[in-house]
Amino acid sequence: MSSISTQINRPSVTALDDILGISFPLLDHGFVRIVDYMGSDEAIVQAARVSYGRGTKTLSEDSALINYLIRHSHTSPFEMCELKIHAKMPIFVARQWIRHRTASVNEYSARYSVLDREFYVPSAEHLAAQSLENRQGRSDALSSNEAEKVMQLLRDDAASAYDHYLHMLNENPDGSRRSNGSVGLARELARINLGVNFYTQWYWKINLHNLLHFLKLRADPHAQYEIRVYAEKLLEIVRLWVPATAAAFEEHRLNSATLSRTAVSVVRRMLAGEVVTAENSGLSKREWSELSKLLLSK
Amino acid sequence: MSSISTQINRPSVTALDDILGISFPLLDHGFVRIVDYMGSDEAIVQAARVSYGRGTKTLSEDSALINYLIRHSHTSPFEMCELKIHAKMPIFVARQWIRHRTASVNEYSARYSVLDREFYVPSAEHLAAQSLENRQGRSDALSSNEAEKVMQLLRDDAASAYDHYLHMLNENPDGSRRSNGSVGLARELARINLGVNFYTQWYWKINLHNLLHFLKLRADPHAQYEIRVYAEKLLEIVRLWVPATAAAFEEHRLNSATLSRTAVSVVRRMLAGEVVTAENSGLSKREWSELSKLLLSK
Amino acid sequence: MSSISTQINRPSVTALDDILGISFPLLDHGFVRIVDYMGSDEAIVQAARVSYGRGTKTLSEDSALINYLIRHSHTSPFEMCELKIHAKMPIFVARQWIRHRTASVNEYSARYSVLDREFYVPSAEHLAAQSLENRQGRSDALSSNEAEKVMQLLRDDAASAYDHYLHMLNENPDGSRRSNGSVGLARELARINLGVNFYTQWYWKINLHNLLHFLKLRADPHAQYEIRVYAEKLLEIVRLWVPATAAAFEEHRLNSATLSRTAVSVVRRMLAGEVVTAENSGLSKREWSELSKLLLSK
Amino acid sequence: MSSISTQINRPSVTALDDILGISFPLLDHGFVRIVDYMGSDEAIVQAARVSYGRGTKTLSEDSALINYLIRHSHTSPFEMCELKIHAKMPIFVARQWIRHRTASVNEYSARYSVLDREFYVPSAEHLAAQSLENRQGRSDALSSNEAEKVMQLLRDDAASAYDHYLHMLNENPDGSRRSNGSVGLARELARINLGVNFYTQWYWKINLHNLLHFLKLRADPHAQYEIRVYAEKLLEIVRLWVPATAAAFEEHRLNSATLSRTAVSVVRRMLAGEVVTAENSGLSKREWSELSKLLLSK
Repeated sequence: MSSISTQINRPSVTALDDILGISFPLLDHGFVRIVDYMGSDEAIVQAARVSYGRGTKTLSEDSALINYLIRHSHTSPFEMCELKIHAKMPIFVARQWIRHRTASVNEYSARYSVLDREFYVPSAEHLAAQSLENRQGRSDALSSNEAEKVMQLLRDDAASAYDHYLHMLNENPDGSRRSNGSVGLARELARINLGVNFYTQWYWKINLHNLLHFLKLRADPHAQYEIRVYAEKLLEIVRLWVPATAAAFEEHRLNSATLSRTAVSVVRRMLAGEVVTAENSGLSKREWSELSKLLLSK
Repeated sequence: MSSISTQINRPSVTALDDILGISFPLLDHGFVRIVDYMGSDEAIVQAARVSYGRGTKTLSEDSALINYLIRHSHTSPFEMCELKIHAKMPIFVARQWIRHRTASVNEYSARYSVLDREFYVPSAEHLAAQSLENRQGRSDALSSNEAEKVMQLLRDDAASAYDHYLHMLNENPDGSRRSNGSVGLARELARINLGVNFYTQWYWKINLHNLLHFLKLRADPHAQYEIRVYAEKLLEIVRLWVPATAAAFEEHRLNSATLSRTAVSVVRRMLAGEVVTAENSGLSKREWSELSKLLLSK
Repeated sequence: MSSISTQINRPSVTALDDILGISFPLLDHGFVRIVDYMGSDEAIVQAARVSYGRGTKTLSEDSALINYLIRHSHTSPFEMCELKIHAKMPIFVARQWIRHRTASVNEYSARYSVLDREFYVPSAEHLAAQSLENRQGRSDALSSNEAEKVMQLLRDDAASAYDHYLHMLNENPDGSRRSNGSVGLARELARINLGVNFYTQWYWKINLHNLLHFLKLRADPHAQYEIRVYAEKLLEIVRLWVPATAAAFEEHRLNSATLSRTAVSVVRRMLAGEVVTAENSGLSKREWSELSKLLLSK
Repeated sequence: MSSISTQINRPSVTALDDILGISFPLLDHGFVRIVDYMGSDEAIVQAARVSYGRGTKTLSEDSALINYLIRHSHTSPFEMCELKIHAKMPIFVARQWIRHRTASVNEYSARYSVLDREFYVPSAEHLAAQSLENRQGRSDALSSNEAEKVMQLLRDDAASAYDHYLHMLNENPDGSRRSNGSVGLARELARINLGVNFYTQWYWKINLHNLLHFLKLRADPHAQYEIRVYAEKLLEIVRLWVPATAAAFEEHRLNSATLSRTAVSVVRRMLAGEVVTAENSGLSKREWSELSKLLLSK
């Protein structure tokens, strides 16, 4: 493998160039917009071919190679791509989001600057009762009457907290003074009165491998609805950016199922004609129920 | 360097064993307690001697070797030590803290469980006006009259938000039902009404190298007071745990100063007897002022 | 969840304490020995219970909780445990090993110190022909005649390279001068004459989550034999250290299988009585063959 | 700070576009070529302004802001830029290089493919004697007679190792069979006969913050010459790519000096007119000597 030395152009993806900078609205005041990116399906293939050298000749098609990489967890070629976004989201969403540590972040600082009067109030259809089976889940939507009361309460508390915030600051978002006569509390203190439903924003940059991991966890039905809408929008964008990778990811990761050693043997026994029951399966009750739902439900 | 194969004991540090599990109160409801640790000054030295092999013979004393490692940014031996703590802090402190990505975290989840009625209200002496020079800093304390009003306001808003939180949940922190007749909003939604001054808690584990970096930034006078108290307590604990490393860190990192290329030449010129002024120094006004303060102020 | 403030003892694991410091020989000159550790199955459970708070009451048994965490990729509690080892391995093994980036390493430096006359020569049974199906795999063992020639050749080249290394250094491993009259080439240069089969050694520290990932990749039959022996020994040690975690890992990760979206539907169709063939399966030839081998082979 | 929603173009840097893909030769067979990049000085400034919001108004000039960020270790905006290179280097250089863990790598695999007959032999001027003061350093160049002998020896050993490598493989680099009648040893085994002076190659991607850290350590005079030539070439490229950042880095990081707490007080005493000696300085002998060299030498 000799070195190639010719001036080249940066890989680019027209479908992504077309939406660069455009805000996609999410929730009541949030958005996502792509600010920059690096790489493409072709860049992934190119990086993989460096690793495997002449060894990749047989996998001549790019999408077959990408499928192979995803299936066998050869993750490093996907690290060669980066996405940089500007996003605005409620603080409680930002707190879940930031747990993905392998990303770069520049967040708007409420120590430096005054926050805007923007807070999240769920729409009625997303105000759901606590699930009884799943401690971190939602059940049915509230009645419209109950929902209206909750929305009013959230709106009133946030509005009042924000009014007090500006009052303590004795300053408006545009930096102009108010007239309550006080010297103005430090910004880093006044902001502690605001709720986690207030909006923050950041620049966030992540490589494609880590982005897929983020999507696997946050585009999942178990993720909280309010972060899931961001993940689903990002998944749409990934489909535009690296279509072959997105397809392989959805086929082999997002919508795949992992069978434990025992579950594999249960399926083998079933396919060999044996009648396997919860009792003789060797699985826990919970695992049996999950496996049945996966493979036997109508 | 042949292998040594004898049963050994785990390195331990009596001064740290003595405080393991003990809570050190911080702010009005917070605390830090050490849950576990790994390594010691001796473990650092041992790891360094593997790297340098016979080459470390001349640096026979452990503390001299640790000083050398700190001064020359040989950071990997410090990664060989770990500290695991349990801490409770307001959410806005947790948000600054989590920006240190190279740590492991298990945070209490308000999606799963109901939060307690605990929120931070600064004491009067820490309620300071916005600094005019430093956008992220504090100036003088408020008058006691103003402070009292702010405290009352923070207390009232938090109390009201918490009452509404329990009301929406229709549930008490101990899991018992309340009696407002509603089905109970999902926990993951009800909690969005709470302010960033509410307390959260987590287990946090970090290696010593990254902990020193955390302390460099957060035990610094420019850090916000409310996270600085945690950093200062952790620095005290590091002094108990790895005294030689703590001393080298304070001498060469925490209280050191970095001179730019131009600043070095300014100092050389001064020491050679030249009269150097802001104008002929080659430094920006800001850098000149900082250098003067560092080296010339009384 | 109130804070608990009582002096506690460090978690410890007797089965691991018993082997601390003991070298386990691997390959012809290599070894692994545990130098320190942090955490236990109980520590994992404890960290998880902080996250889920009162929500973990229903999963009352520790091993059930650990199973749950492994199955649902709740990885952070496993990051709360650390293992620190001293290992000696050929350089080509070290090069594969170091690709696991989320670990701390102090490696013996051949810039500082002289390497010993230790190089790896595979035993006859491990000298295998190139696989024709798998470019990175081995096929049958060489004939004893061929194997003997290869071993002789490897031994001769390494011995000669090492002799020349000492000659260029004009120095012995113990630091004493040789007598060839030269001034002695710099160590950092002389060592470039040595092969990647020469042994190096390091201290290596990794958290349990990342160690399990290492074991998943390196205790796998597709890993090169020479690193696999290290991974298999480490897996044995993990079984001593955190038995519940090791069992869950082997059941749900190491010996599990992932079915793609299409593969799941193929299995559903089969279990519903349909005759599914390679042609009507919707799978690629390669995936069909792998699925058949997994579920249908005798 | 409202969201801006207009289609934008990707930031690009003409000076870097002009050299994209072009190989810069290094050592006897190595090279570096830029394959892709993301970001620019402007992108750094833009990310910083998100963090500081309206607070950055006073630092109106971009280069002043970049200087400020570098001086105060506000590192996250620099993480917003990425550089992706293709490089070829001897294995012993790759081993030092890979220690920088926060990068993405796809390396050519000698398990998959046959290596070329390329190995590093230092030129005579770089064949230096072992330093007596610095265990990891070089002293004067060897005599031309000695150098010639070393070069011959390195060349002969590598050539012989490579011949035996192909012989064991019974295969040529282009995949054609040789004729020694053997079945051909597995590639992953045959390559263990090659020295660490053989060339490998990889795609390597790193963000600018981590790249500057790499350059700080590897463009330093204490770094081994053979990796330093790569770092110096990369520094040249950084100057083309992000000129304001490169200038700030060289001024405040690469050519800066850190004074310990005691060293600061020594300089203060000197500037106040006191005669400070090694004895009354409070510094160790080594630190005194380094400080003298920094500030007092002619």
